[in-house]
Amino acid sequence: MTAIDLNSDLGESYGAWRMGDDDTMLAIVSSANVACGFHAGDPAGIWKTVKAAADKGVSIGAHVSYPDRVGFGRRDMDVTSGELIADVIYQIGALKGMAAAAGTTVGYVKPHGALYNRIAHDPKQGQAVIDAIKAIDPSLVLMGLANAPILKLAQASGLKTVAEAFADRAYTPDGQLVSRREQGSVLHDTQRIAQRMLQLANKGTLEAVDGSTIRIDAQSICVHGDSPGAVAIAHEIRRAFEADGVTVRSFLSA
Amino acid sequence: MTAIDLNSDLGESYGAWRMGDDDTMLAIVSSANVACGFHAGDPAGIWKTVKAAADKGVSIGAHVSYPDRVGFGRRDMDVTSGELIADVIYQIGALKGMAAAAGTTVGYVKPHGALYNRIAHDPKQGQAVIDAIKAIDPSLVLMGLANAPILKLAQASGLKTVAEAFADRAYTPDGQLVSRREQGSVLHDTQRIAQRMLQLANKGTLEAVDGSTIRIDAQSICVHGDSPGAVAIAHEIRRAFEADGVTVRSFLSA
Amino acid sequence: MTAIDLNSDLGESYGAWRMGDDDTMLAIVSSANVACGFHAGDPAGIWKTVKAAADKGVSIGAHVSYPDRVGFGRRDMDVTSGELIADVIYQIGALKGMAAAAGTTVGYVKPHGALYNRIAHDPKQGQAVIDAIKAIDPSLVLMGLANAPILKLAQASGLKTVAEAFADRAYTPDGQLVSRREQGSVLHDTQRIAQRMLQLANKGTLEAVDGSTIRIDAQSICVHGDSPGAVAIAHEIRRAFEADGVTVRSFLSA
Amino acid sequence: MTAIDLNSDLGESYGAWRMGDDDTMLAIVSSANVACGFHAGDPAGIWKTVKAAADKGVSIGAHVSYPDRVGFGRRDMDVTSGELIADVIYQIGALKGMAAAAGTTVGYVKPHGALYNRIAHDPKQGQAVIDAIKAIDPSLVLMGLANAPILKLAQASGLKTVAEAFADRAYTPDGQLVSRREQGSVLHDTQRIAQRMLQLANKGTLEAVDGSTIRIDAQSICVHGDSPGAVAIAHEIRRAFEADGVTVRSFLSA
Repeated sequence: MTAIDLNSDLGESYGAWRMGDDDTMLAIVSSANVACGFHAGDPAGIWKTVKAAADKGVSIGAHVSYPDRVGFGRRDMDVTSGELIADVIYQIGALKGMAAAAGTTVGYVKPHGALYNRIAHDPKQGQAVIDAIKAIDPSLVLMGLANAPILKLAQASGLKTVAEAFADRAYTPDGQLVSRREQGSVLHDTQRIAQRMLQLANKGTLEAVDGSTIRIDAQSICVHGDSPGAVAIAHEIRRAFEADGVTVRSFLSA
Repeated sequence: MTAIDLNSDLGESYGAWRMGDDDTMLAIVSSANVACGFHAGDPAGIWKTVKAAADKGVSIGAHVSYPDRVGFGRRDMDVTSGELIADVIYQIGALKGMAAAAGTTVGYVKPHGALYNRIAHDPKQGQAVIDAIKAIDPSLVLMGLANAPILKLAQASGLKTVAEAFADRAYTPDGQLVSRREQGSVLHDTQRIAQRMLQLANKGTLEAVDGSTIRIDAQSICVHGDSPGAVAIAHEIRRAFEADGVTVRSFLSA
Repeated sequence: MTAIDLNSDLGESYGAWRMGDDDTMLAIVSSANVACGFHAGDPAGIWKTVKAAADKGVSIGAHVSYPDRVGFGRRDMDVTSGELIADVIYQIGALKGMAAAAGTTVGYVKPHGALYNRIAHDPKQGQAVIDAIKAIDPSLVLMGLANAPILKLAQASGLKTVAEAFADRAYTPDGQLVSRREQGSVLHDTQRIAQRMLQLANKGTLEAVDGSTIRIDAQSICVHGDSPGAVAIAHEIRRAFEADGVTVRSFLSA
Repeated sequence: MTAIDLNSDLGESYGAWRMGDDDTMLAIVSSANVACGFHAGDPAGIWKTVKAAADKGVSIGAHVSYPDRVGFGRRDMDVTSGELIADVIYQIGALKGMAAAAGTTVGYVKPHGALYNRIAHDPKQGQAVIDAIKAIDPSLVLMGLANAPILKLAQASGLKTVAEAFADRAYTPDGQLVSRREQGSVLHDTQRIAQRMLQLANKGTLEAVDGSTIRIDAQSICVHGDSPGAVAIAHEIRRAFEADGVTVRSFLSA
């Protein structure tokens, strides 16, 4: 029986500002990357999302970020390793506190935005994130970009990792994401996306932009929930998986 | 053998800004109220203080605050219970994460500044703080103002509490702090303060502003470390205790 | 010919978070209360709103707030007069800079949320806001709650003032807003609201909750734009005014 | 008669945290680079510094920064041009408001920290800063690093510029600052520094690290005030200038 994880970025409201439809997405995904307050998420909002995730049996991950709320964590920052280690411990700790208060636990860590992209290939900031995770709780799994060096770096440091693919993104023939600056980098056809993800779940392969078939070793698929279109895609992937007998299940419950 | 706890507010630097002399104070006190980021304390600074406290065997408490960095948590805020519960869980969680990474634990919670003063007498915000502590970790002790209603409220809710006296503050005949707005509310004479605290530790009494002797049931004494004068007072209290055979020991180690 | 001002709170997005529909509202109102960064509004968003208001000839007001972004400026704070004066000067200055860069000016100041409610009746904080406005630019008009003491206080200090009524709020027989905690305090019937505002514009009167007719001396009407229902109400008021020959025009252009 | 400007970074306290000795430095320098709230400076503190500068006839410059308070604006950030333009307008506007309230004006703009270093050589962010200044007030002077491309870029855009040298920094034979990562990059000998600055003021030359004499075309000298040693250096430069007949005078008063 084939099983795969679906993850989404949640808890990204802030105070009076809403973002995403957490309740709807929590009925679709098996893992929730919950904002920890540095790019998004105020305590009351995080608390609500954590409780809802716990209620629905969705796994909780710490979606840690650079400290850049106004930039939503999307801007590269030259933080020192010491700053980054402390920032990551702080955020994971805060979310672990929320999870404990909700009677559940944090199972994994997925860096957000610019930090996610930076550590995929930057061993210095990558190692800082790894060191932070090991310091606070070495049983936490690091979720990272499939085929990126960060995964091997984390494994070499003794961390468990899970690789993720992006449902709505095109891939190059060598298994990298097509840059958002290039045409066709983001896919919009709901049916086509669902069929691609079905192939990924069943065969571990995707069609690259040049038509070639590439291997993507991913145990999780990232789906978005911050627009009606994104929610529709997530819904369709889930529906296609269920119709085809693919189980949606957190990698943590394996 | 008489024993009492000395506590101080630490970890109150922020980024490039320094406040207090944590290293010196950690050699004097037995309990460190560590800022959690809402009124003071950035992750890198908190991390440094938590590690130093762990190295010196000083107990760590979460010095939780209203979210008011520019006002240093000293301004009363009309937060809802829901907001306050989430804010307190978040801050305790962040500090627990830091403590775990440093191989130690958080043992107690001491609200800071305006929140401390508010909950001393406001059962609504007080209950929210209590509920937050119980939700994240009911074994945490709440440190509060000696003779204030918050202590009974917390006990009635099943929390352990510890009462504290303030070394440099004058008391009214009925055991309350003299308001800072009144003349003579803050004591400055190092020797006199040390003798008062010796009496408090040995007999559980203090001389009130009218010369009467009052009973203050406190298991901890708060000393400050944010000015050379404050450090000198803390030093002298410690010296006087050691000369008189009073053991300085965290209430958590009892 | 009867003329009245319509004002709305705009520029309240923050970074990646959207709030309200500024473009739609700028086609309805004659005055825009633009967030200044303390409760809402990041510089890039404020800049966009100020330019759009300038393009449409809508008057710009500084919507100054307590420094409480996570609470959206809705929580009462015990700031000192010194802090409040500086906070208000800073915010007005920032918006004046934005306006200058867009080739326009700031014409008035409308405090936001908890600060608005506080100064309506609190002469200490009210005087601090007045002193700040006089210090930075005594030609700025203070917009305040019709029938509230703040208006007389400001006039006595030499400031021009404009009184506003709230389109969707019920009034007591003595001309005060019915508290939001009471049933029926907020009106939802689009037609009825528009008819009430027509009566206000034409006769300076409103029907209070007890059915009596009260005098409300207001030169501006506040309409909201942060929900589809609120936009519809604003639309209908504008439509009713135009149908009835009431000119919608900023009090500044009088 | 030889005249030169001395400038220093001031207004860098934040809330309860003190940094630098503004009162002492305002008696030494002719130009004050005042923090605008993004890397340092809360409104009440900025207000105090602006009033003190106005009292002492010291010119006021806007010390604008990336939005990074916890990193004190020292960390490079990949902001977009649109974000940077708005951030700079906002900060200059806020300080202009403070200056207006103190009965004075802002005369120049000096970017801070990582932004200063970035725009010295990055034409994209440099142009954004220039565009922001031109939008809000094209009469503002841009202060930048002597010999750096930003000065020519600003002049080509129609801005007046002033070049500054750093009193306590070593220079390469081609007139660049020796990187802080290299030994000997920062000078500490008070007498030697004062003699170097005397030579700079009188002849427009400095001795580079290799012993060669280089030309530095600077109309202002940056002195620091955030440590006792830095204040002593600033004092000695001022003393040496007065003893030698060099007038310390803001470039704005020329």
